[in-house]
Amino acid sequence: MTKRTEARPATHDFLEACRGKKVRRTPVWIMRQAGRYQPEYRALRKKHTFMELCKRPELATQVTLLPVEQLGVDAAILFSDILIPVEAMGVPVEFTEAKGPVLAKPVRTARDVARLAVPDPQETMPFVMEAVRMIRQGLGGKVPLIGFSGAPWTLASYMVEGGGSKSYVGIKQMMFQEPALYRALMQKITATVEKYLLAQVEAGAEAVQLFDSWAGALSPRDYRTLAAPWSARIIKRLKKTGVPVIHFVYDGGGVLEQVRDTGADVVGLDWRVDIDVARKRLGKKVAVQGNLDPCSLFLPERELRARVREVLTANAKLPGHVFNLGHGILPQCSVAAAQVLVDEVHKFKL
Amino acid sequence: MTKRTEARPATHDFLEACRGKKVRRTPVWIMRQAGRYQPEYRALRKKHTFMELCKRPELATQVTLLPVEQLGVDAAILFSDILIPVEAMGVPVEFTEAKGPVLAKPVRTARDVARLAVPDPQETMPFVMEAVRMIRQGLGGKVPLIGFSGAPWTLASYMVEGGGSKSYVGIKQMMFQEPALYRALMQKITATVEKYLLAQVEAGAEAVQLFDSWAGALSPRDYRTLAAPWSARIIKRLKKTGVPVIHFVYDGGGVLEQVRDTGADVVGLDWRVDIDVARKRLGKKVAVQGNLDPCSLFLPERELRARVREVLTANAKLPGHVFNLGHGILPQCSVAAAQVLVDEVHKFKL
Repeated sequence: MTKRTEARPATHDFLEACRGKKVRRTPVWIMRQAGRYQPEYRALRKKHTFMELCKRPELATQVTLLPVEQLGVDAAILFSDILIPVEAMGVPVEFTEAKGPVLAKPVRTARDVARLAVPDPQETMPFVMEAVRMIRQGLGGKVPLIGFSGAPWTLASYMVEGGGSKSYVGIKQMMFQEPALYRALMQKITATVEKYLLAQVEAGAEAVQLFDSWAGALSPRDYRTLAAPWSARIIKRLKKTGVPVIHFVYDGGGVLEQVRDTGADVVGLDWRVDIDVARKRLGKKVAVQGNLDPCSLFLPERELRARVREVLTANAKLPGHVFNLGHGILPQCSVAAAQVLVDEVHKFKL
Repeated sequence: MTKRTEARPATHDFLEACRGKKVRRTPVWIMRQAGRYQPEYRALRKKHTFMELCKRPELATQVTLLPVEQLGVDAAILFSDILIPVEAMGVPVEFTEAKGPVLAKPVRTARDVARLAVPDPQETMPFVMEAVRMIRQGLGGKVPLIGFSGAPWTLASYMVEGGGSKSYVGIKQMMFQEPALYRALMQKITATVEKYLLAQVEAGAEAVQLFDSWAGALSPRDYRTLAAPWSARIIKRLKKTGVPVIHFVYDGGGVLEQVRDTGADVVGLDWRVDIDVARKRLGKKVAVQGNLDPCSLFLPERELRARVREVLTANAKLPGHVFNLGHGILPQCSVAAAQVLVDEVHKFKL
């Protein structure tokens, strides 16, 4: 093989857009692009549990690669679960169809926190790094691979609440009533996530998304003082590796400026905020990702295409936009609609 | 009796603040101020179902009046349930401890919508108007009584989803795929809510809160075109009665301007947006209500008081502020903390 045939393209639109650079066309990927809306995924899930898909690198690879071919998206994202590092810290996680993840032994006391490990990802989650390597090989440089992890506040809230939550009473009580305990917990989680994401990058992840699913439940004041600094610490360390960092705080319309100030290259936006309004607030030094309502995929094709163009047009004057939904694609959506979305983004003249 | 002893005070701080007028001290009430955090309420709930408390005027009155004495708040709010008018439209509602309200026969088809009534509130919900009259009598002019209803989009989503929802797939599918059906549904709900609130005002409600619990799940574009106009229609009609209208869209930080543009006197704010930022966006012509995180009540007393003052200070330069939590008080909170909150608001020097 000559060097030329081996060489991957020097740049990818996705990575360039993350860095705020001009690109030929707006790159697009879809959160949860490997998921239940795909017949192939559902077929695999009949044969394997969700955890098997996460923990067997060849299955994780298969699942990760599927939407790259099927949709023609501009990035792959590691198929994994947000709670993998929580399990590695020593908190058993059970995945139930009905209730989502259940952590039967929630972390509530000083003893609970003291018992938590800050695990070596290579030892406790080797299957993730193996999957990253296999996916990179499978992609063959076609599109970049995004690694990901849940952000500290989200992982802490799962650990304290013992699962999903409506009002986050447990974690907020800890924050407000036992600040030292909360700090100790966040310290361990932050160290774990940092190591975990660095290991993903070392294995080959070319960008990472730090995903704060629940920090939108915080007031701006609490987000700024009690959640953002922990994410910022991770982002600061990751940026030394040179990979772009996407930070997405779901339902974070009230704290966009603080999300930007964590130092992320890209601020993820959900659909609850107009993207042009968000960009005005964020300024020109940061890229954005988003932000079509996932339910837009239920629209008739013409209207879906129009909605896609609306988001793109609102962004047309500024570089640094990665098109995405404002949250994960829903199981009720069709592959055809996802294809229409990608097609329309790619057709758009910048 | 002379005219003088009969007369109620000409103004109340609460009503004045709703109208954007200067007041002597910031008025305060608490969403769900009659609720499970109160031992007396829990005792009553052991003897009666939730629906009995709503439908027996003497019980609804007792429950409504309790926090007025206990906390010293500046307004009472009718104890009722958001789904009372839905039931009156002909959709059976069952209240379960585990899952919240369940509507076993959701509204999905043209036939379902055609079957819905636009009920006469006096005939179908006389117990509400009776409760309003009894509460007014019980209050004896001490503080004003707020009536309330769910806003059309929230009621529609309950009706279509058959209960609470995470992603609102059902109602959004209807909006996007069957716009005429959606319109027919919203028309009936809007007409029902309008009549219902007018009946409450006629019975004696001195202000009303139109509560859109779920419209925060809409993109700003969809909120503006598909939800706000229906609320605006109701508000326009209500304002002719002269009572102030509070419009609260929970998780509506992305659509504050549109909420204001429905014509409401007061825009309710949840805690996800800084109140000074919100006021800058909203301008001076509208009052605001909010916006402390309900979980703040878990803070040690000193810090809780400091948080209350922060919200008040951020507002100090503008009249037209009704202090409240950013959402309902949580069952895990203490009455003592709620009392501290009210005390601190009342102590604050404007």
